[in-house]
Amino acid sequence: MSTIPESAQIGNHAVIEEDVKIGENVVIGHNTVILKGTQIEDDVTIGCNCVLGIKPAVNPRMRKVSKADSSLVIQAGTRIGHLASIYSGTQIGKNVFVGDHASIRENVNIDEESVIGRAAIVELNTKIGKSCTIQTQAYVTGDTTLEDHVFIGPCVSMSNDKYMGAAAFSLKGAYIKKGAKVGNNASLLPGITIGENTIVGAGAVVTKHLEDNIVAAGVPARNIKS
Amino acid sequence: MSTIPESAQIGNHAVIEEDVKIGENVVIGHNTVILKGTQIEDDVTIGCNCVLGIKPAVNPRMRKVSKADSSLVIQAGTRIGHLASIYSGTQIGKNVFVGDHASIRENVNIDEESVIGRAAIVELNTKIGKSCTIQTQAYVTGDTTLEDHVFIGPCVSMSNDKYMGAAAFSLKGAYIKKGAKVGNNASLLPGITIGENTIVGAGAVVTKHLEDNIVAAGVPARNIKS
Amino acid sequence: MSTIPESAQIGNHAVIEEDVKIGENVVIGHNTVILKGTQIEDDVTIGCNCVLGIKPAVNPRMRKVSKADSSLVIQAGTRIGHLASIYSGTQIGKNVFVGDHASIRENVNIDEESVIGRAAIVELNTKIGKSCTIQTQAYVTGDTTLEDHVFIGPCVSMSNDKYMGAAAFSLKGAYIKKGAKVGNNASLLPGITIGENTIVGAGAVVTKHLEDNIVAAGVPARNIKS
Repeated sequence: MSTIPESAQIGNHAVIEEDVKIGENVVIGHNTVILKGTQIEDDVTIGCNCVLGIKPAVNPRMRKVSKADSSLVIQAGTRIGHLASIYSGTQIGKNVFVGDHASIRENVNIDEESVIGRAAIVELNTKIGKSCTIQTQAYVTGDTTLEDHVFIGPCVSMSNDKYMGAAAFSLKGAYIKKGAKVGNNASLLPGITIGENTIVGAGAVVTKHLEDNIVAAGVPARNIKS
Repeated sequence: MSTIPESAQIGNHAVIEEDVKIGENVVIGHNTVILKGTQIEDDVTIGCNCVLGIKPAVNPRMRKVSKADSSLVIQAGTRIGHLASIYSGTQIGKNVFVGDHASIRENVNIDEESVIGRAAIVELNTKIGKSCTIQTQAYVTGDTTLEDHVFIGPCVSMSNDKYMGAAAFSLKGAYIKKGAKVGNNASLLPGITIGENTIVGAGAVVTKHLEDNIVAAGVPARNIKS
Repeated sequence: MSTIPESAQIGNHAVIEEDVKIGENVVIGHNTVILKGTQIEDDVTIGCNCVLGIKPAVNPRMRKVSKADSSLVIQAGTRIGHLASIYSGTQIGKNVFVGDHASIRENVNIDEESVIGRAAIVELNTKIGKSCTIQTQAYVTGDTTLEDHVFIGPCVSMSNDKYMGAAAFSLKGAYIKKGAKVGNNASLLPGITIGENTIVGAGAVVTKHLEDNIVAAGVPARNIKS
């Protein structure tokens, strides 16, 4: 059994498996499941019907990930919504906000003060900097890097597999530099870079590298203002 | 404790917090959580593993909303699917259908006979008229108005923040007039108007106001038939 | 009550309704709901907080489906993630993988070794062949057929209703032939065919039939390489 401090508020029918560490003043909602080995620091709030600390499934048609056996760590002051799922081997920094229905895979690092929107998905091996905003329903694929203060609009879609499963290929997501902003429902192709403070318009399809400080829009995305 | 009429069917491990009002012939699924103050009228059916009546989180990087302390009201005859989340301060009219995995924020008003699709999201301060259809995975951003009989196709994306967090800006979603139809995966920019009975093609990017009774398609969307 | 073999591992607060058949070595996560009549074969693993075996809702504004009263069948070796929902009248083949937050409707047939991604949605009356991959957040509309080895990228959107609810129309999704690949966030219009081994680029809008063995991209999608 895990030790639960007296200052914690645990909801009805919450399931807390063994070897879970719970800090002071933690709130865990009704029917939420905290799986084995999860570490929850002080002043963390977690909603109802979540599943946290999931061990990655091993499937012959899906790739393997190292570090899969390390814990999920949720740092102090972070708030997780309702009906969210988060994997083990991931670290969520201080004062992060994770929306309802969001899903975060294994081996992800989210730095402090970032917001992961409602129903947004962050795939494995991804690094998200400080004070980033990932809006509602956005899809951050695996092997992606976001520097600090990046804004990803609602429903943005990314991919990391140039050959869509057809060839041996080193999977590579986007690299998005400091302060870049991507408009709603834009599509990013595998391995592209978006420059510092660059703005991508809504619905754009980004097929190649974008320089710093430009505004790009259209299909494919072109610099519309330097 | 809340009073539960004998005519109600309450699932296993459902959690019903205090000050919840439940009408006659209400069905609540297994493991569903009904939070404090929620009002459920007669003949409402709610699926399993839902979370209803959520109080908005207060986060310094997210804006504040008035009316956050009023109740969630679900009017008679409405059906809520499974794994859905709905916030307090929202009113859902009669005979509405809310799909599985859908999420509806605070201070939303949905008029009678409308359908909110599977995994669709309706953000805060939004008004949806009578007999509207919001299809699967569509994203209705905050501060949006849909008049009656509007059709929003699957995966449609909207935004309400012209400067993507970069400037002080009064957030403004789309205003979509009576009978308009928006095709699947179209993108709507902040503050645009779509005219009465106008049709927007699949995958279009709507960057400016569209008149009544036109058909618009492309990136950016243009009138293709008057 | 349903009979649960000694080899099954059933999580805390899981709800298993009557007439459920459970094979050997089945794992069912915490707080998961298995509704009446569901058939789970040997070596199936199901995550936490799922709802399986849902009977379709009957709503005057939504169409009726035959076979709605047959069971959900999950064949041997299949793995279902967390927070997923699956309807009755659907058959999921052997060694299929269904991601977290995914939703699969009634009267769907998924053949062996296919992957249904995280938060992907498969609507009713759809047939998915062997070893298909439906990536994260993709939307497979109703009345769609995927032959074997089809790849649907993340956030792909489909539609099956040419008149968006405005006219009597026989709903028809896409027909996607063997080995075709659809890039992320592409939009498919109702009733189109995508040829064998054809590749559709990210963000493309497919408005008409695409031949075998081509590469199509753009809005609307055109053959860019024969």
